[in-house]
Amino acid sequence: MAKIIVRNGTFVTVGGEKPVIRGCMIIENDTIVYIGENEPEGNEIYDQTIDGTNKLYMPGLVNTHCHAAMSLLRGYGDDLALQVWLEEKMWPNEAKFTGEDVRWGTLLSIAEMIKGGTTSFVDMYDHMDEVAQAVEQSGMRGCLTRGAIGLCPPDVQDHKVKEAIQFAKDWHGKAEGRITTMMSPHAPYTCPPDFIEKFVQAAHDLDLPLHTHMSETLHEVLENERQYGLRPVDHLAKLGLFSRPSLVAHAVHLTDAEIETLSAHHVHVSHNPGSNLKLASGVARVPDLLKAGVLVSLGTDSSASNNNLDMFEEMRLAALIHKGVSGDPLAVPATEALKLGTVNGARSIWLDRVGTLEVGMKADFIALDTDQPHFLPKSDYVSHIVYSASAKDVVDVFVDGKQIVRNGECLTLDEERIKYEAQNRFELLTR
Amino acid sequence: MAKIIVRNGTFVTVGGEKPVIRGCMIIENDTIVYIGENEPEGNEIYDQTIDGTNKLYMPGLVNTHCHAAMSLLRGYGDDLALQVWLEEKMWPNEAKFTGEDVRWGTLLSIAEMIKGGTTSFVDMYDHMDEVAQAVEQSGMRGCLTRGAIGLCPPDVQDHKVKEAIQFAKDWHGKAEGRITTMMSPHAPYTCPPDFIEKFVQAAHDLDLPLHTHMSETLHEVLENERQYGLRPVDHLAKLGLFSRPSLVAHAVHLTDAEIETLSAHHVHVSHNPGSNLKLASGVARVPDLLKAGVLVSLGTDSSASNNNLDMFEEMRLAALIHKGVSGDPLAVPATEALKLGTVNGARSIWLDRVGTLEVGMKADFIALDTDQPHFLPKSDYVSHIVYSASAKDVVDVFVDGKQIVRNGECLTLDEERIKYEAQNRFELLTR
Repeated sequence: MAKIIVRNGTFVTVGGEKPVIRGCMIIENDTIVYIGENEPEGNEIYDQTIDGTNKLYMPGLVNTHCHAAMSLLRGYGDDLALQVWLEEKMWPNEAKFTGEDVRWGTLLSIAEMIKGGTTSFVDMYDHMDEVAQAVEQSGMRGCLTRGAIGLCPPDVQDHKVKEAIQFAKDWHGKAEGRITTMMSPHAPYTCPPDFIEKFVQAAHDLDLPLHTHMSETLHEVLENERQYGLRPVDHLAKLGLFSRPSLVAHAVHLTDAEIETLSAHHVHVSHNPGSNLKLASGVARVPDLLKAGVLVSLGTDSSASNNNLDMFEEMRLAALIHKGVSGDPLAVPATEALKLGTVNGARSIWLDRVGTLEVGMKADFIALDTDQPHFLPKSDYVSHIVYSASAKDVVDVFVDGKQIVRNGECLTLDEERIKYEAQNRFELLTR
Repeated sequence: MAKIIVRNGTFVTVGGEKPVIRGCMIIENDTIVYIGENEPEGNEIYDQTIDGTNKLYMPGLVNTHCHAAMSLLRGYGDDLALQVWLEEKMWPNEAKFTGEDVRWGTLLSIAEMIKGGTTSFVDMYDHMDEVAQAVEQSGMRGCLTRGAIGLCPPDVQDHKVKEAIQFAKDWHGKAEGRITTMMSPHAPYTCPPDFIEKFVQAAHDLDLPLHTHMSETLHEVLENERQYGLRPVDHLAKLGLFSRPSLVAHAVHLTDAEIETLSAHHVHVSHNPGSNLKLASGVARVPDLLKAGVLVSLGTDSSASNNNLDMFEEMRLAALIHKGVSGDPLAVPATEALKLGTVNGARSIWLDRVGTLEVGMKADFIALDTDQPHFLPKSDYVSHIVYSASAKDVVDVFVDGKQIVRNGECLTLDEERIKYEAQNRFELLTR
């Protein structure tokens, strides 16, 4: 049994009774067993003692929408409209992706994510066995799903459905429980209705949740209306997608009625502010979603449309843009933005023991180096996390009580090799 | 005569014929004398040889609106409307600021700025001798001005005007030319017309430019109309402010006619996206300003309303929010955002030899460590700077050919003492 104590730390609990605790935290195996101002009495022996002086501890960040392998295309075709970017830059190159490409692109993203304090992420892509192996090796958590585009002949469609089912069966609960799986028809505009229904049926059969892109652009919403006579929310509801636990990414263009439908069906929404801004998709109605009681979390989307995987930046964007656009300085305050990036993310992917620093929760936590000018004065650490910190401030990362980043260095991955291979794959793809 | 050569570097020139050069750069004293793919022939002897492998060199960033001392109030009163924040949180505490507070608050900001790649900044504040001394010591450039609020009795007003004139005279051209000065009535809503006119007259007498806040909030614009029958642009034009070279901060709420007036008078605009979003002031019409030929640059504003001084973040916000809000994915592309943060900033404060890496320009340049996952693949370095980099990627900083940050460490400032004193001043102010 491994026992770790962190002494003299500052802990931003997110979920606890006290938002900030200065004191000590004790971990037994994968679980937080104590957090408080004073160290418990007794002569306990610890396997590891950590000095938390000048460190800020907080729950690991949860990225609820990503296509990790696409980091191989970071900076390749910027400043374009979504459809042009997808159809002319992304899809033709992604079509060339082999398992090796997915492996090194995903590892590149995972290295960036864990070094930047993200301990759990959602990945929707192809060659998912490679992704799952990379997650297993990294020590982080992944909620993984084979995203399938249905614009293809019936036999290819069937093959994709089978592949998605096989992957979901093979990996659900693996890597000491750090990997879970979902079923994912890519989007209403890339999947015929009967193709979507097959994924819904599979999700029922396997007792798994569903994940899809929805209402990212106005164009896509209007096309859906033209083609099916329904906006995407009602269209997906009709196809049964919300009859299962579900997580939709983007949800930028929503009517009041659609927000009510999402709330009534307990649909989780992954807000992707950086990607939505960069692709000029628009600004999601996050304050309205929150008011309606919808569970909103944050995703980076891929680093081809972001172009980084810094979840501090997504929290900051979520806190900033809705104020600026609505004119309401109380829209998405720092405390709320911090929840979007942590506990809401965990709940969005059905991890009920992740996302806060409290007794009984999984020991998924990160430490920031606060001995830097931009963390002074020591006024309000929640504010500093949301409005001032960045991925580069993260020094230590633990998942399930195991350290995977120490003083900014990956302990589980060979970062030098990953950087070399990723650059090599990019050159082979684009030569 | 000091001669420096950087070999094996990647140089993002911003202004040069080639946007990116892989090769070498040579500095003689304060000036770039060579930049190109191949090293010049001959057996030149250099005082310093720098290996630029895995480094990205670019012009130093220019922050055109800041109140550096206010970093003492970072995180103190977030998520409030501008007037409430100013009147209840900032002004009462700032009224208590002594010269010592300004000194340590400014040094805290300067440490953050230079470590993050900002080599020139505008500061508008009080106790400006302290600010000028801090700039002189740091080795960076400052365009400094005593910002004066005129809501006070005539004798206090006169005292402020005299103080502003004295400061501008004392420091213009000092610190080997790194310090320049301006005249600054704080804003139309905090300065009676005759008070503003005194600053305009002084600017004419001293042959100096003017700097002021303008049209930051809609409330302020409507109040100006109510009180003076004019919107702020026409009001300031009538008072002669634009008869001098001038730089206005914010300019969020503008009509088409106002944009034309700013363009016709060659008024420079400091766009402060982070602060404008956080205070819910709105989104400035930057694409329209650029189309009208207005010289737009970027400012952080103070870290009490930002809450950091990371100019990479301001470039990224400028590149992202105007796309997302306008729906135009070509609004403010990465190449334009990079200009806003560098060469446009330099021109905005009348530094015509700063802001690009070209022969004959001042050697104000910075190096980023690109041996990190978020800089891969090596696809488009302008994109990576704007969409992926942050202040924490900066490792080396030079101003006037002199190194002021080496491997992330301040060479000119005692950072440990600054952090200690800044925290101490905050505790004394707010106890």
